[in-house]
Amino acid sequence: MRLMMVKTPEGDALGVVEGDGVAILPGRTLREVCGGGEAALKAVAAAAAAAPKVPRASVKAAQPVLNPGKFICIGLNFTDHAKEGGNPIPDYPALFLRVPSSLIADGEPMVCPKASPTFDYEAELTIVIGKGGRHIPEDKALEAVFGYTIFNDGSVRAYQRKSTQWTAGKNFDATGPIGPEVVTCDELPDGAHGLAVRSILNGKVMQDGNTSDFIFSVAKVVSTLSEIMTLEPGDMIATGTPAGVGYPRKPPVFMKAGDEIVIEIEGIGRLTNPIVDEA
Amino acid sequence: MRLMMVKTPEGDALGVVEGDGVAILPGRTLREVCGGGEAALKAVAAAAAAAPKVPRASVKAAQPVLNPGKFICIGLNFTDHAKEGGNPIPDYPALFLRVPSSLIADGEPMVCPKASPTFDYEAELTIVIGKGGRHIPEDKALEAVFGYTIFNDGSVRAYQRKSTQWTAGKNFDATGPIGPEVVTCDELPDGAHGLAVRSILNGKVMQDGNTSDFIFSVAKVVSTLSEIMTLEPGDMIATGTPAGVGYPRKPPVFMKAGDEIVIEIEGIGRLTNPIVDEA
Repeated sequence: MRLMMVKTPEGDALGVVEGDGVAILPGRTLREVCGGGEAALKAVAAAAAAAPKVPRASVKAAQPVLNPGKFICIGLNFTDHAKEGGNPIPDYPALFLRVPSSLIADGEPMVCPKASPTFDYEAELTIVIGKGGRHIPEDKALEAVFGYTIFNDGSVRAYQRKSTQWTAGKNFDATGPIGPEVVTCDELPDGAHGLAVRSILNGKVMQDGNTSDFIFSVAKVVSTLSEIMTLEPGDMIATGTPAGVGYPRKPPVFMKAGDEIVIEIEGIGRLTNPIVDEA
Repeated sequence: MRLMMVKTPEGDALGVVEGDGVAILPGRTLREVCGGGEAALKAVAAAAAAAPKVPRASVKAAQPVLNPGKFICIGLNFTDHAKEGGNPIPDYPALFLRVPSSLIADGEPMVCPKASPTFDYEAELTIVIGKGGRHIPEDKALEAVFGYTIFNDGSVRAYQRKSTQWTAGKNFDATGPIGPEVVTCDELPDGAHGLAVRSILNGKVMQDGNTSDFIFSVAKVVSTLSEIMTLEPGDMIATGTPAGVGYPRKPPVFMKAGDEIVIEIEGIGRLTNPIVDEA
């Protein structure tokens, strides 16, 4: 199933995407479905079958989960990206967090901050937690996952390097688009393995990686994080970006006002955002 | 004014502390008061004057703000603590974030994880944001602050060092006690300057610092963070810990089941938690 949150005049509603149409289900949220197991998915499917459809192209996406309990990012999960930034290959994932004020929906403008124009894209497959849990063994970890979506880990490189901790450069307001659609696990290969992950800046492919090159698999990431913290329905885990980001290029490439950045993940869809300057 | 959230059979309620008593105001939250300005403080004062009091010693604290929009921590903000860990003196604050599942209230057990017994205390003054904002100049930054509370930044040192990013060691479930009382700015020196910050493990003083030794003042921290992100009512900023933590001691001191750790900040109060082993 393909689910999304849709902006409506009465507030955000759950959308069930079928081909070119979306069934709109007011009063429901994707977060509730994440925590509701098979029963919730069946109820949503039944409600969607009975609901009127609108064209997918006519709806505006909201964030899949507003104010998620956790938004966790894996810093280096592709050998080629670690190398392009001069980082050693990690034996434990480098983790950082995003605050909700840094997140936006598909179609909303990504804001290039006044503080620094070193504004870079990062295409990332993102895990959406379903039943979650704590101390989940690796061979059970995929059972804790609800589905997958798309993230652009917009990074202000000059601030990412201001201290040893990357938090500042990863948390500027309105720099992290997420969504639009969440695809349930049954529609994708196990662990979302073998999916192409691309970023496309103004029509030009900048990153072209594949989740088969992960250093830490989806199951390994979920299991490793669950050793630390209880994973809860609707929690998001961005799995790291492949080579091809802008800052190590010669000359460096950064996003600027007027640009359009698309993140495309095979089998999941496209996340498209314009770039604007901070007012 | 001294405010806290109090556990009651009907759910968490706002408490107004006056001497040895607390006026309980059901249906109100500290977060709302943070965002409500002078009018909210006046309304709370009037309601508290009319409400029955219970003994302060009889109430159990809840977290001051449940699921805060942001919980930001400053990594190194005391010269002596930077030196004891072998870190250079920073010219920009090292920032990391905590997830809500890592936070607990005064009196609740801090959980020493099975993953590693390297469980350390960190006494920290914590800023509670009031009106907040973005791009706040340093000379206006204290106007964005609602008050101050106490935090114990419980850290699993072996995991803090698993990668370059400290996130893992700072986000184990139930390792970060916060509260119990939030003291409004008018009851403390400007910028909470000159307050003693202590940790006391099983009755022995382990850290004994003073906020006058901050590398980055409260105003500087608020202004610096607001360059990155919009600060919102109820957001929390832990301002870093002084020297005396356990891991650099010879031999190292770590917290273990049966211990009691108290964080004491002059003019604000005491935050007390027992240590238990993970089940």
